[in-house]
Amino acid sequence: MFAEAEADPSLSKEEFKPLEAKLRVALLNAQYQRLQKADKTLLVVIAGIDGAGKGATVNLLNEWMDPRHIKTLAYGPREGAELERPPFWRYWNDLPPKGSTGIVFGSWYAPLVLEATRKRPDQNSIEAQAAAIRHFEAMLASEGVQIVKLWFHLSAQAQKARAERLLASPETSWQVSPIDLKVYKKYDRICNAGQVVLNLTDSGHAPWVVIPSADEDMRAARTAEAVLAAMRQRGVPRIPSAFVAHARSTRIVDRLGALDYDAKVDKDDYESELGLLQGRLARAARSKKFQDRSLVLVFEGQDAAGKGGAIRRVTHALDARQFDITPVSAPNSEELARPYLWRFWRHVPRHGRIAIFDRSWYGRVLVERVEKLTAPANWRRAYAEINDFEGQLAASGAMVLKFWLAVTPDVQLERFKERESSPFKNFKITADDWRNRDKWKDYAAAANEMLARTDVAHAPWHLVSANDKRYARLQVLRHIVEAMEDQL
Amino acid sequence: MFAEAEADPSLSKEEFKPLEAKLRVALLNAQYQRLQKADKTLLVVIAGIDGAGKGATVNLLNEWMDPRHIKTLAYGPREGAELERPPFWRYWNDLPPKGSTGIVFGSWYAPLVLEATRKRPDQNSIEAQAAAIRHFEAMLASEGVQIVKLWFHLSAQAQKARAERLLASPETSWQVSPIDLKVYKKYDRICNAGQVVLNLTDSGHAPWVVIPSADEDMRAARTAEAVLAAMRQRGVPRIPSAFVAHARSTRIVDRLGALDYDAKVDKDDYESELGLLQGRLARAARSKKFQDRSLVLVFEGQDAAGKGGAIRRVTHALDARQFDITPVSAPNSEELARPYLWRFWRHVPRHGRIAIFDRSWYGRVLVERVEKLTAPANWRRAYAEINDFEGQLAASGAMVLKFWLAVTPDVQLERFKERESSPFKNFKITADDWRNRDKWKDYAAAANEMLARTDVAHAPWHLVSANDKRYARLQVLRHIVEAMEDQL
Repeated sequence: MFAEAEADPSLSKEEFKPLEAKLRVALLNAQYQRLQKADKTLLVVIAGIDGAGKGATVNLLNEWMDPRHIKTLAYGPREGAELERPPFWRYWNDLPPKGSTGIVFGSWYAPLVLEATRKRPDQNSIEAQAAAIRHFEAMLASEGVQIVKLWFHLSAQAQKARAERLLASPETSWQVSPIDLKVYKKYDRICNAGQVVLNLTDSGHAPWVVIPSADEDMRAARTAEAVLAAMRQRGVPRIPSAFVAHARSTRIVDRLGALDYDAKVDKDDYESELGLLQGRLARAARSKKFQDRSLVLVFEGQDAAGKGGAIRRVTHALDARQFDITPVSAPNSEELARPYLWRFWRHVPRHGRIAIFDRSWYGRVLVERVEKLTAPANWRRAYAEINDFEGQLAASGAMVLKFWLAVTPDVQLERFKERESSPFKNFKITADDWRNRDKWKDYAAAANEMLARTDVAHAPWHLVSANDKRYARLQVLRHIVEAMEDQL
Repeated sequence: MFAEAEADPSLSKEEFKPLEAKLRVALLNAQYQRLQKADKTLLVVIAGIDGAGKGATVNLLNEWMDPRHIKTLAYGPREGAELERPPFWRYWNDLPPKGSTGIVFGSWYAPLVLEATRKRPDQNSIEAQAAAIRHFEAMLASEGVQIVKLWFHLSAQAQKARAERLLASPETSWQVSPIDLKVYKKYDRICNAGQVVLNLTDSGHAPWVVIPSADEDMRAARTAEAVLAAMRQRGVPRIPSAFVAHARSTRIVDRLGALDYDAKVDKDDYESELGLLQGRLARAARSKKFQDRSLVLVFEGQDAAGKGGAIRRVTHALDARQFDITPVSAPNSEELARPYLWRFWRHVPRHGRIAIFDRSWYGRVLVERVEKLTAPANWRRAYAEINDFEGQLAASGAMVLKFWLAVTPDVQLERFKERESSPFKNFKITADDWRNRDKWKDYAAAANEMLARTDVAHAPWHLVSANDKRYARLQVLRHIVEAMEDQL
C-alpha cells in the first residue's frame, strides 16, 4: 500500500510546471462549479506520517483554490465542553455547508491512529473506532458530503533528511518540534498503524489516497489530483452494506393499536402524585451525580396529543437555567445545507444539563416519510443512523428517553375543535393538522415501524396512552424519575 | 426608587388568585401572538439583590408561559475563549430569534453592579460600562429587540428572614450558599449600587422595573405585569439621542475621486517585493506576541476591484489553520431573525487567529443603502454602531484593518468583459454586477461618506488604488505588515 510512496518518487521541474498550471485551473474550475450547484460538501481529511509536509500541503490547497470557500478545520485533543459530548460532536458542529470545502486536520482518525501506534494496541478499541468511523462517513456520504482522505507518506530516510533541512535554517526550524524528533523514531510503528487504519476504513465513497511526500512537487501534484478526482465524482455514491449501520430487523407489531386508551387518573390522585414525582425529579436533577451526566428527552406523538403540556409538567420541577427546549419544525436554509442530523447535534447538552426536544430527529421517519419530503432510501437508512446517534449520546453520559404520546382519532378531533373555538389556541391548529389527520393510518404505520426499529436499551421508547392528559403527564414524569433514580 | 419595595408589600391570597389567572392567560396569549408575528425578540434581564428569589421567578415565567419558546441564558464570569473576545460577544452570540423570549441571568449588568458595589468604586469604569450598555441596548432596541430589566428588591429584614426560612429545611437549604450570607452583610452597598446602575441605564426603550420581592405572590404578579407590558409595547421605540452612539460629524470629501489611479508596479519589482512582504507577514503572524492578539481584515471595493486576488496574496503567507475567510452575501433566515451585526459577531476571532471578511458589515451603508434594502434610519445610525463594534474588537486585542480597493469605471468594464468571455470566470459576473455599475455615482457617494465617518484610529481605512492589481496587492500587504510590526 505504501510501496510506491516508500520509494520517494519525485517530479522534475520540467514535468511539474505544465502539470501545475493544468491542475490549478482545473481545481479552481471544479471548485466554482461546485459552489454554483451547491449540492455537495467536500471534506479533505489530512493524515499520515509526521514530517511529511501535511501543513504545507494544506496551505498549498488554500493557495491553488479560492480560499474564501474553504474552511480549514484543525483539532487537538478534546477539551472543556467537548469532553462532555460524544467525540464526533465537534466534527458535526463544524460541518461546512454544501458548495464549500472543508480540510480536516486532527480529524476523527487521530485517536484511531494513536491507538494503532501503541506498543500493544487494544484491538477491540481499534475495531470499535473503525466501525464508528465507517458509520459516520457512510452517513455523510449518503447525505451529500464527499470525502477524500489523504495519507502522506515517505521513507524513513526522507523523513530524517527533511527534518535536518528544516532545522538547518532559523526561518524553518520552528516547523520541527522536539516531539516530532521523538516520533520519527517510531517510524515503523506509524507505518504499521497506517496500514491497519487504511485497511479498516478505505471505501469507494470515502477513499484513502496515499500521497508520496518526499518530493514537494510530487506531493503537490498528487494531492491536487486526488482532490480533483473527488470533486469531479458525480451522483450518489454506492455504499457497501458492510459500512452502513443496520437497524435490527424485527417484526413490526401494532403497538399503537394495542394500547389501553381508557387509562385515566382522577383529579385528586393526580395532584398529589404530580407533586411527589416533581419533587423526586427536582432532587435527581440537582443531585451531585447528575453533574456528570446529561438528559435528553424526546417528545413525539399525534398532533394535539399533549406534548406541550407534558413538557411543562417536567420543566416545572427543573431550574430554568439547566434545561433547553428545542421545538422542531421544517429545517431552515442553514440546516438544509447540511446532513439531516446536523441540526440536532447542535443541541446536544453538556453534562448537568437537560435537552428537551418537542418533535425531533424522528421527523425523518414520520412526517418526511409520510409526506414524501425525502426519498425512501433516506428514511429507510435513518433508523440505523438514529440508533447510532443515540448510542453516541448514551456513551457520552446522556440518558436518552423517548416518549410517544398516543391519542385516538376521536379525542384528537375533540381537541382540534376545542382549539379552533378558543381565541387563544386557534393559531395552534392549521390546515396541516387536518391534512395529517386524513393520513392517520399512514402515520400510525410509520410510528409502529419506528417504535419497532428504534426502541433500544440505551434509548428506550415509552408509549404513553394520552387520551387522558393527567394520566399521560404522570406516566411521562414517572418514567423520567425512575430512569434517573435508577442510573444516578 | 426602591421606597415601595423596601416596604415589602404583599398580596393576600384573595387578591392574588384572580390576578394570577388573568395574568397567565394574558402572558400566554401575548407570547403566542408574538410567535406568530415573529417581528420582535423579547429580552428579560434579571438583576437585583441576592436572596430576592430571582431564580424562582425565572422558573415561574417558564411555567406561566410556554417554555418551548423561552431561552434561559445564564452567565457566570467570562472564561476560556470568552476572554479572548469582547465582553458583549457571548450575549450577541446567544441572541434568540425574533418571535422568542430570552431571560438573561448574569447579564451585561453583572460586572457593572459588581464594580458599583465595591468599597471604592472606580467612577470612570462605571461611566464607561454604563455608556457601553446604553449603546448596546439602544442598538438592540432599534433592531427589533424589546428589553425589560427587572430589579428584584426587598428590605434587609425580609432578606434575612427568607434566608433563615430556606436554611431551616434540608429541601431548600441548598438555595442559600455561604457566599450569599456574606453578601447579605453588604445590603446597603448593594442598594446604593442598584440606585447608581438604574439611574445610569434606565430608558423608555429598555426600562428598569423594580419588583418588590419579599412576598412571593407580589413578586410573581409584578414580574408578570412588567413582562406583559413589554410584550404589548408596539411600534419602534423612540430612543433618546443620549443613549445612541454618534458617528463624528465630518466633512465628506471625495476621497475616491482624489485617488491616483495611475499608480502601478512592474512585474519584477512586484515579485521581489511580494516575497519580502509575505515573509514579514509570515513572521508576524507566527510571532509569540500575536498569540495575545488577533487580526480582523475587511475587504470592500467595487465589483471586480480584485478583493479575492488580494486576499489570496495575504493568505499565502499564513498557516491555513490560523485564518478563516467569511464571504458576505445576502443574509439567510437565521441572520434575518436577529439584529444586523449578529452575523458578524459570530465570526469574531480568538487570539492568535485571523478573520478575513470579503465584504462585511459595511454592506449596511453601501449596498443596503444604495439599493434601498433597509430604511434610511437604519443605515444612518449604522456608522456609529459599526464604530462601536470595531472599538470593542480593538479593545479586546484585535487589530482591525479595512481596505477599500478602488478601480475606475473603464477598468471595471474591461474586467467585466474579460470575466464574461472566460469560460471559468463567467459565473462571477451577474445581472447584479451590471446593475450596480449603473449606480456607480451612488455607490461612490456612499463609499465616500463611509470612509469619512468610519475611518478611526483603532480601525483605519486604507483606500487602495486598484486599477493595477499588482500595486493594490502590495499596498494591502504593506499596510498589514506595518500595522502588525508596529503593534506587536
